[in-house]
Amino acid sequence: MTAQPKTITAAILVIGDEILSGRTKDQNIGYIAEYLTNIGIELREVRVVPDVEEEIVAAVNALRTRYGYVFTTGGIGPTHDDITAECVAKAFGVPIDVDERAVACLLTRMKREDLNEMRLRMCRIPQGADLIENPVSAAPGFKLGNVMVMAGVPRIMQAMLDKVAPTLDTGVKIIAETLEAPIPEGVYAAGLKEIAERFPSLSIGSYPSFGQGGPRNQIVLRGKDPVELAKASAEVSALVARLIEQRATN
Amino acid sequence: MTAQPKTITAAILVIGDEILSGRTKDQNIGYIAEYLTNIGIELREVRVVPDVEEEIVAAVNALRTRYGYVFTTGGIGPTHDDITAECVAKAFGVPIDVDERAVACLLTRMKREDLNEMRLRMCRIPQGADLIENPVSAAPGFKLGNVMVMAGVPRIMQAMLDKVAPTLDTGVKIIAETLEAPIPEGVYAAGLKEIAERFPSLSIGSYPSFGQGGPRNQIVLRGKDPVELAKASAEVSALVARLIEQRATN
Repeated sequence: MTAQPKTITAAILVIGDEILSGRTKDQNIGYIAEYLTNIGIELREVRVVPDVEEEIVAAVNALRTRYGYVFTTGGIGPTHDDITAECVAKAFGVPIDVDERAVACLLTRMKREDLNEMRLRMCRIPQGADLIENPVSAAPGFKLGNVMVMAGVPRIMQAMLDKVAPTLDTGVKIIAETLEAPIPEGVYAAGLKEIAERFPSLSIGSYPSFGQGGPRNQIVLRGKDPVELAKASAEVSALVARLIEQRATN
Repeated sequence: MTAQPKTITAAILVIGDEILSGRTKDQNIGYIAEYLTNIGIELREVRVVPDVEEEIVAAVNALRTRYGYVFTTGGIGPTHDDITAECVAKAFGVPIDVDERAVACLLTRMKREDLNEMRLRMCRIPQGADLIENPVSAAPGFKLGNVMVMAGVPRIMQAMLDKVAPTLDTGVKIIAETLEAPIPEGVYAAGLKEIAERFPSLSIGSYPSFGQGGPRNQIVLRGKDPVELAKASAEVSALVARLIEQRATN
């Protein structure tokens, strides 16, 4: 028996009325999902909640107790609707106050007399958190326990993710093969199911889409064991080739 | 005292490993969010879960008991990884079987001899559900109780949403005003908070972004009462104008 490969799980919590109203189209979920996959962290769930304290607190607690890491985006600016830091502190039951390390970050970009009461809100960091540097606009995010609190503006979030990622525990990277299947899903579904059943360690999915060239199906095989993946991919390729040939001769 | 405007709430449940792996970038959340806002339904939560039965069942039940409507996307194709219909039936505790109405839909596009076992999976509809027509590729979605089960392919999902939307109960439409604020958030945050406190029926948010022209802040006011909205917008506009002037003379 071989040792089970280490699995590190994660969830994303997107915070913001603007996403739920459709005004702002989220660009962070897909970015973080791909990023985590590439560093060997498995994203298992995403939630989007409004700027409402009890919703944020409940979601932070539901996700942080269930997954290895939680990545939040949004709600850490200076305005009254930015309540994420307070909510994360409440979720953990720790005090929150102006943090001198965060003040120092802001003072690299502005004079002390411009650090008004609302801007100081961006320096409120829950007790025990580590700062996540913000090279774009100075106001930091933070890491409290297994929760990474990041900005909602994609450029800032991405920079923060680059800063915090090297500090994270990662597992075996999931590798994926994508195969084109230029025949209808219903033609290969039975054969694909049979292959999927013989390779239980892999996740095999079929993804139809509509592009400029019309409908397109792709079969994606994902797993941690490159040998299993290669074997299954070869079987799927052979299945698709055989079915294409059959259709041509019918 | 005036009657409370009717509020219809909703949640979206995105089902699919491909979204969580980052392979496919979701295009449905933002589309449905904006669509619902425009017809007077308030989106309150979004979840993304993997193609795992217990996760889907738990999420369907958590959301359908809490919100007026639930819109699911993904997992209704013919392949083995398409398990949404089975899971929704299980969540509701109702039987699921091949539905002759759904078979009739598929027979508009294919011969009966091509309706193999896997394609018949797309005709499995929980007992008591109404079909949601799919004008793009025939295989229908369905509406069971307050849960709308739709395809994941954006073009198909959009067509299904157009079909089901007229059957839904809708509330008072939320209207929004967007104001440009060409000064830093920290400069107007205190004044904006004060206005927000005086207009508790409105949701007032401040949204920074980075475009090609550099950083940009927008203030969005949302609510159901056009008079309150107009009053608050005038105050925010005056606030921003005053602060721009102050900065110019300093």
